[in-house]
Amino acid sequence: MANSIYRASILQSYSQLLFQPCLSNKHCVPKKTNLLCFASSQLNPARSEVSFCIGTHLIPHPNKVERGGEDAFFVSNFKGGVIAVADGVSGWAEQNVDPSLFSKELMANASSLVGNLEVNYDPQILIRKAHAATCSKGSATAIVAMLERNGTMKVASVGDCGLRVIRKGQIIFSTTPQEHYFDCPYQLSSELVGQTYLDAVVSSVELVEGDTIVMGSDGLFDNVFDGEIVSTLAAHSDVVEAAKALAKLASNHSLDSRFDSPYTIEARSKGLDVPFWKKILGMKLTGGKLDDITVIVGQVVSSAASPQPT
Amino acid sequence: MANSIYRASILQSYSQLLFQPCLSNKHCVPKKTNLLCFASSQLNPARSEVSFCIGTHLIPHPNKVERGGEDAFFVSNFKGGVIAVADGVSGWAEQNVDPSLFSKELMANASSLVGNLEVNYDPQILIRKAHAATCSKGSATAIVAMLERNGTMKVASVGDCGLRVIRKGQIIFSTTPQEHYFDCPYQLSSELVGQTYLDAVVSSVELVEGDTIVMGSDGLFDNVFDGEIVSTLAAHSDVVEAAKALAKLASNHSLDSRFDSPYTIEARSKGLDVPFWKKILGMKLTGGKLDDITVIVGQVVSSAASPQPT
Repeated sequence: MANSIYRASILQSYSQLLFQPCLSNKHCVPKKTNLLCFASSQLNPARSEVSFCIGTHLIPHPNKVERGGEDAFFVSNFKGGVIAVADGVSGWAEQNVDPSLFSKELMANASSLVGNLEVNYDPQILIRKAHAATCSKGSATAIVAMLERNGTMKVASVGDCGLRVIRKGQIIFSTTPQEHYFDCPYQLSSELVGQTYLDAVVSSVELVEGDTIVMGSDGLFDNVFDGEIVSTLAAHSDVVEAAKALAKLASNHSLDSRFDSPYTIEARSKGLDVPFWKKILGMKLTGGKLDDITVIVGQVVSSAASPQPT
Repeated sequence: MANSIYRASILQSYSQLLFQPCLSNKHCVPKKTNLLCFASSQLNPARSEVSFCIGTHLIPHPNKVERGGEDAFFVSNFKGGVIAVADGVSGWAEQNVDPSLFSKELMANASSLVGNLEVNYDPQILIRKAHAATCSKGSATAIVAMLERNGTMKVASVGDCGLRVIRKGQIIFSTTPQEHYFDCPYQLSSELVGQTYLDAVVSSVELVEGDTIVMGSDGLFDNVFDGEIVSTLAAHSDVVEAAKALAKLASNHSLDSRFDSPYTIEARSKGLDVPFWKKILGMKLTGGKLDDITVIVGQVVSSAASPQPT
């Protein structure tokens, strides 16, 4: 159940210039225009200029399909590429607040601020300014990654959205979720009690051509193990197909009450389990986590101008 | 079985100027001398200048106590502080090569190069130059972290030494091990078939006052779960005591054949387990991993000059 058309229409209304899919959900960051026709290898023999080629897939929570779920995301081709995911905190529904409004407005604001000079291509400042500009009631976890042309990817994250970098079939970089207690992540909020950009974990990693990154909401990482992410990417070289396969895998696991998911392993480690009498019978808490699932897959590709024939 | 005196004596012979412990194994990076007496808050209200206060502890493999094991490490008070660990690959012993020589020379070279202008305070270049200067036969995994005064910690790692950042009782940043296959990590080598600085994972994370970092050889991370690292740090505010407690916990687990360690969980996930007939009886591969254990604990402290009374 892909929801990419819905997401695109929402974001295009806010930020048409920045959200430019080449295909329905494949976002190719174009090669750099280089009028002087220097091959990057002439400038720096060790590192060519790079950018992202991006595929996305969103599967809303089965009970929230009509409104498209509460996750939001955007991709931009600014510089090496910018990707971001926000996950609206569902608890707001109990207060008759649509939990999707905050996450969608936050991402729309972030998308429109990507090229802002004051943001200075810094994901933490982007979160600060996007949060400040968001008027909706609610709260959301959020992650932003910004790729420089030289391969440096800066990441800022508040809460439990996540990111992995895969190189030569291995995960070489992972973000780590922040939470107050089990199932209560750090979150940007319309209320003063929430977290701010100052609570973001800010990190960076040097990427090289051929690396693949996977960004997602907790609906992905609570249902899919890191080893499964690696094997799924190995089976799908196309970023759109990879994103779709990962989202579907997460969705399948989320619906499987017998699957021992990352979510239930975490729950049991926090002391949450089946009643004692069931434990005696050898039973344990299992199952995936029903949730909105957003997956962004980015391949790091060379964007250097080809050497001109002389 | 602490071995800190042995390590200090080895390193002092190579790099006396850079290795300056205040106590036997507590390395306090001193406050910045600021002749103009500006409080850092006057210069930058959001971030004060920071440095590491460091405790270390090394417990050699029980069978390698006499020679002090095959791990090596160094700490330096250059800028915000530099820490590094190398783990000599034990397989060299089968070729009558002492596996500790390469790791120790590598760390000694790295220690002496910390302030080198060409290194430019870049951990990946430090690894490149230290590796190039190492003449011993052998190989080692290695990790280097360099803290800037503004809080940016740059990390370069080849193999399965590791690093965690703990903030407010949560791990917010982790490195990820690289390996060719189970128990065969990426390694810097005297031989051409090994890895180089180009294979290093290079990342950085923004640290703030109060953060704690834990760096170690795989002898720590193969025997101690992340949750145990967090709880051990919570019980020991002193960095020396924390490093000692973590090393002892790792050592205790390594000697416990019934402990279901990170190492055996990883082994089982790779298909390595007890024979089939034992599995039928409900048995599984358990136990810690006997190894050299190196732990470095660093607390991020303010190194700003205090405001002067007016």
